[in-house]
Amino acid sequence: MTAPSPGLAERLRLIVLTDRALAAPRTILEVVSAALAAGAPAVQLHDKQAGAAELLAIARDLRRLTRRFGALLFVNDRADVALTADADGVHLGPDDLPVAAVRRCVPEGFLIGYSTDDPARARRAVAEGADYLGCGTVYPTGSKADAGSAIGLEGLDRVAAAVPVPVVAIGGITPGRAPEIASTGAAGLAVVSAVMGAEDPGAAVTALLAPLARRSGIREPVR
Amino acid sequence: MTAPSPGLAERLRLIVLTDRALAAPRTILEVVSAALAAGAPAVQLHDKQAGAAELLAIARDLRRLTRRFGALLFVNDRADVALTADADGVHLGPDDLPVAAVRRCVPEGFLIGYSTDDPARARRAVAEGADYLGCGTVYPTGSKADAGSAIGLEGLDRVAAAVPVPVVAIGGITPGRAPEIASTGAAGLAVVSAVMGAEDPGAAVTALLAPLARRSGIREPVR
Repeated sequence: MTAPSPGLAERLRLIVLTDRALAAPRTILEVVSAALAAGAPAVQLHDKQAGAAELLAIARDLRRLTRRFGALLFVNDRADVALTADADGVHLGPDDLPVAAVRRCVPEGFLIGYSTDDPARARRAVAEGADYLGCGTVYPTGSKADAGSAIGLEGLDRVAAAVPVPVVAIGGITPGRAPEIASTGAAGLAVVSAVMGAEDPGAAVTALLAPLARRSGIREPVR
Repeated sequence: MTAPSPGLAERLRLIVLTDRALAAPRTILEVVSAALAAGAPAVQLHDKQAGAAELLAIARDLRRLTRRFGALLFVNDRADVALTADADGVHLGPDDLPVAAVRRCVPEGFLIGYSTDDPARARRAVAEGADYLGCGTVYPTGSKADAGSAIGLEGLDRVAAAVPVPVVAIGGITPGRAPEIASTGAAGLAVVSAVMGAEDPGAAVTALLAPLARRSGIREPVR
């Protein structure tokens, strides 16, 4: 089991997932730039259509941007792209490589996230080397095939209570719902459409972060 | 530049690429088993449809089989799957991760193949750390989108003459054409349909290997 990195929970208050279609006609770099400028502490590159060469090119651009803002960068699914882009880590799901297999092949300090809504699987993933968990779908959402199986705040809390690592809520999260997520044991939020599809991504980030910042007392965004 | 591994050219006389559709109704494991039993010295797992978890499961099965027969195992495109399956290497193309980027992230001795039909790109790939090259399409083939741009034996020889590492001919190769490939500077052949689609994959392997075995005088298959 990996010991939780100091400050990791703090850096996972908000993970902005990329989505080319939702960002359009803007590029994901434009939307991510605005999100980082507004204080988003983490970005996950998510693009199931791109080949590895294209994915690496995007990841390298995101790496430059996230470095400039001191933000974390994760790559979905492909550990090889994450490693070659010098990302901070990879995010894995049940159809991706197993956490234990990836943990054996990556350098010390490389972060591994894992998606699950099940407390037992969450414990197993952490035992295998996951540094944080993505947990959802919390709310029903049109952007996920599994929209019917929303776990709600109770489901989220059950996973958060099961593991000693940060748990990040995902699925249907909007600025309006961020306060109730902040009332759970989740360390943070992960969003796709709430930022990628926002007319003003910076304002969306500010609104999403505010309830969590109030909770931790780390910083109060200027309104 | 990586020094050519001793014996690598010999082990690349024939690379059997997997193809689920061509193997059907047999599994690729059944076809690969027959190919290995007939002396195929290398296998490349190629499956653009499978997710990483499924790909790893297949790769692990192939790893067990190839170990039993002392054959090499490569995984197409995904270096992370190759590493976690303990494969011998990864095969990359122009749309995959760059050779240099992967070389920096893999352990000593991990093999990297690269596909190109261009002598200058071949030299660059070797300088970046490629251990062997796949070169083609040699013959027009229905199974490749680029069937119109067949390079022929002359094109193959130009690439083979340009680099000090083994060059493996690919594209439209059949047992009947293996003798003329053996007359070029190529170290070996890579085939998809000639083995995966063969009624008798073992017989196909024997026929494909014969001209190269005669050339190198290593072993004469029993007919």
